Amino acid sequence: MSRESALGPGREFDLVRTLIARWGDTAFGIGDDAAILDVPPGQRVVASTDSAVDGVHFRRDWLTPREIGWRAAAAALSDLAAMAARPLAMLVSLLVPPAWLGEVTGIADGLGDAARATGARIVGGDLSAARERAMTLTVLGAAATPVLRSGARPHDLLYVTGRLGGPLAALRAWQRGDAPSPDARERFAHPVPRIQEALWLAARGAHAAIDVSDGLLSDAAHLAAASGAHLELSLDQLPTLAGLAPDEAARSGEEYELLVAAARPLDTAAFARQFAIPLTGIGRVASGPAGVDATLHGARVAPGGGFDHFS
Amino acid sequence: MSRESALGPGREFDLVRTLIARWGDTAFGIGDDAAILDVPPGQRVVASTDSAVDGVHFRRDWLTPREIGWRAAAAALSDLAAMAARPLAMLVSLLVPPAWLGEVTGIADGLGDAARATGARIVGGDLSAARERAMTLTVLGAAATPVLRSGARPHDLLYVTGRLGGPLAALRAWQRGDAPSPDARERFAHPVPRIQEALWLAARGAHAAIDVSDGLLSDAAHLAAASGAHLELSLDQLPTLAGLAPDEAARSGEEYELLVAAARPLDTAAFARQFAIPLTGIGRVASGPAGVDATLHGARVAPGGGFDHFS
Repeated sequence: MSRESALGPGREFDLVRTLIARWGDTAFGIGDDAAILDVPPGQRVVASTDSAVDGVHFRRDWLTPREIGWRAAAAALSDLAAMAARPLAMLVSLLVPPAWLGEVTGIADGLGDAARATGARIVGGDLSAARERAMTLTVLGAAATPVLRSGARPHDLLYVTGRLGGPLAALRAWQRGDAPSPDARERFAHPVPRIQEALWLAARGAHAAIDVSDGLLSDAAHLAAASGAHLELSLDQLPTLAGLAPDEAARSGEEYELLVAAARPLDTAAFARQFAIPLTGIGRVASGPAGVDATLHGARVAPGGGFDHFS
Repeated sequence: MSRESALGPGREFDLVRTLIARWGDTAFGIGDDAAILDVPPGQRVVASTDSAVDGVHFRRDWLTPREIGWRAAAAALSDLAAMAARPLAMLVSLLVPPAWLGEVTGIADGLGDAARATGARIVGGDLSAARERAMTLTVLGAAATPVLRSGARPHDLLYVTGRLGGPLAALRAWQRGDAPSPDARERFAHPVPRIQEALWLAARGAHAAIDVSDGLLSDAAHLAAASGAHLELSLDQLPTLAGLAPDEAARSGEEYELLVAAARPLDTAAFARQFAIPLTGIGRVASGPAGVDATLHGARVAPGGGFDHFS
């Protein structure tokens, strides 16, 4: 049983009680100085933290509070997918200006949706007054053998899940003052942490992975750097959304799809049947210096894309 | 080995590399999508998250960046002390406005000091552009038998560590425009998570604990509510700092001392010899409804104190 009924008095604790009530069974054990978790025997703890800031990571005129909450939690949970870890728990820190108090329950509903969809319990958090709307989600998972960015080896084959480009297409539409197409908007508002997909891939030999948060080309560069590997990508077959060209879609960030490396071919048809999204071979690990060579219809594609917070 | 050298290019990653270099051996394994931790066999994971916001939790004209970093990390680590958990790891989320970039290394030094002092490794984090300076620290620890707020039972004896009142005395001085006394300032700027003290107390029978973050009287009320227990406190012997009366010191928050309950008397002289701070008996758990009765020289002391973010 969660101990929410044992919280002390005060308006701050009243708000905590409200959030816990909305989370229902997804909230667990909140109310002590810290949360307690049990990790399955033989498994390692996988932990990541991710912040979402108003005007940087989300715009309140683009998304509902519930979508803002989902998206922030999904971004954090996606880091567990990238390690092929099973989510255990989420800790929620909310910075709440007075003007955000009325939307906090909607944010909490979105956080709860994402936690429930991936099997994470919300086990603790922190509410603070602030001038700027922001939240930090910390996620904890477990895996017997986490999959690292550094696992790619020469001769590996490279695959990407899903269809890319939706978030970029949605952003472009909003920035033009248009409404994005429904599928582009859905990919932006409701990205799906590829947890089950990651477990499937790891069980079938994927031994390096990263989630596509900075854009496929940028994240390929991170994986190449971590593995000390030379990645050759062909974007010709990359599935895209919203009419984007593959080289544009490869610069779309916050996709939360997975780029993985495996020593032997993966069964893309079985993956597509199981998860109703594509798994696409997009290249291989060659000999050569750490880095990425990407081509589209035989022509070189420039590296880069993604978002640098301090450039 | 940490994989900092394997981070991709860009100014954001340059800043991450700078912080990791300053943390030295205290940083560990940063650079993948998530951190990996091993929990000692037979132990449980204890996790807590805590935010510090400019103008709410700290004032840049009162403290150095290094002190701000220490204090925020100490507050988070104190939640592990309150559970008698041994710190394993810290995840650091920093919201960094452009004007804060020059102070971030000082903040990081303070975070590193606190992590090193308690044996936590800094295993991951997140840097984000923002308009408001803020940070969220998530701490992970391990304990075979975490000590809960809910463990107090009738006939237990109650103890508090250290001398209270320093943070309140420092705040009052600053708010008057004065400089606080050195010992009051030190308690505000450099609170010490009572990790070793908590392990000592738990090993000798303390079976309920809370850290004094909201003030002794308020935190006693939280412990009473969680335990369903009636706490009788006598403040007559409460050690205080800076000339504060015990009933004032009992309303001083952000002390990060511990209030514990034990079924049998604790050896306060041995504690004081070991840790060079007092351990003071301040009451007992009586029969009666959940709540706190506090007295000073026989007179009733009103409840409350502490800080409500949304009152």
